[in-house]
Amino acid sequence: MESVLELLVSRRSVRKWKPGPIAEEDIRDILEAAMNAPSAVNEQPWQFVLLSGKVLQDFIKINGNTPKGAPLGILVCGDKKLDKLGGFYLHDCCAATQNILLAVHAKGLGGVWTAVFPNAIPEVRKLLNLPEHVIPVSFVPVGYPDATRPKPASRYDETKVHRNRW
Amino acid sequence: MESVLELLVSRRSVRKWKPGPIAEEDIRDILEAAMNAPSAVNEQPWQFVLLSGKVLQDFIKINGNTPKGAPLGILVCGDKKLDKLGGFYLHDCCAATQNILLAVHAKGLGGVWTAVFPNAIPEVRKLLNLPEHVIPVSFVPVGYPDATRPKPASRYDETKVHRNRW
Repeated sequence: MESVLELLVSRRSVRKWKPGPIAEEDIRDILEAAMNAPSAVNEQPWQFVLLSGKVLQDFIKINGNTPKGAPLGILVCGDKKLDKLGGFYLHDCCAATQNILLAVHAKGLGGVWTAVFPNAIPEVRKLLNLPEHVIPVSFVPVGYPDATRPKPASRYDETKVHRNRW
Repeated sequence: MESVLELLVSRRSVRKWKPGPIAEEDIRDILEAAMNAPSAVNEQPWQFVLLSGKVLQDFIKINGNTPKGAPLGILVCGDKKLDKLGGFYLHDCCAATQNILLAVHAKGLGGVWTAVFPNAIPEVRKLLNLPEHVIPVSFVPVGYPDATRPKPASRYDETKVHRNRW
């Protein structure tokens, strides 16, 4: 399965997209990948809000670091009611977000992991009617990349590998 | 690239392993996948400590939730000196950890994401000689699974998908 390793190494952030929708089947596959991420004691303490159209534009006005132009955005949220162990929903939602980015890349789509900044959360909560126990963690705009790019250089860095002690 | 999507959905935690080492080439590929995870403003604020033999056994005595029996363990750490933006090394290390699990799975190896509990960190730091700016985030024991398992059922859950508002 070398192609999987190539995919893991070749994924890069995409911040410019062509207009045009994404097939429902692709959206389902992407969310299925997210929901098969690991989670602490398998609690799966995540929720996903799909944004498009005016709501997506309004979201980006609030969360200014998210680039414009994608037809779809996926807001990954931690659900504190499902996080019974307590304190690991952030780890679990980050694993799910990475699976989203990889599924997006596998489909020839492109996305970028953007943070939802803490100071934006109250307005995001109001816009999307999120309950208090649902905490936005990350946001991934998704669409067809506006250009093909050369295969990126790997970021492997031997100086960050330590054996048995620092 | 449907095989990639299958891989994302079929990865499951492995907690029992056959004895026997992992090829250096495989270890490099796994770390390369980790280092090609996304990170906030591409800071790549991670470090990896590979544990084997007695040090691995000593680590597991300290961090009791990590299962025994794997020939190798990968400690993923955040490096605060590289995290200049501040506050996102945890997200970035979780993305890298998920890439580790997927590369492990792609190679027919098996691993499990285990937390490094905050109360274990001082002893881990002493055992591995970690500097103060290096924060253990996750630990993945890796080896050849001791049994093949049937293809798992997907965890897709439509009730966790929300469209444009909660």
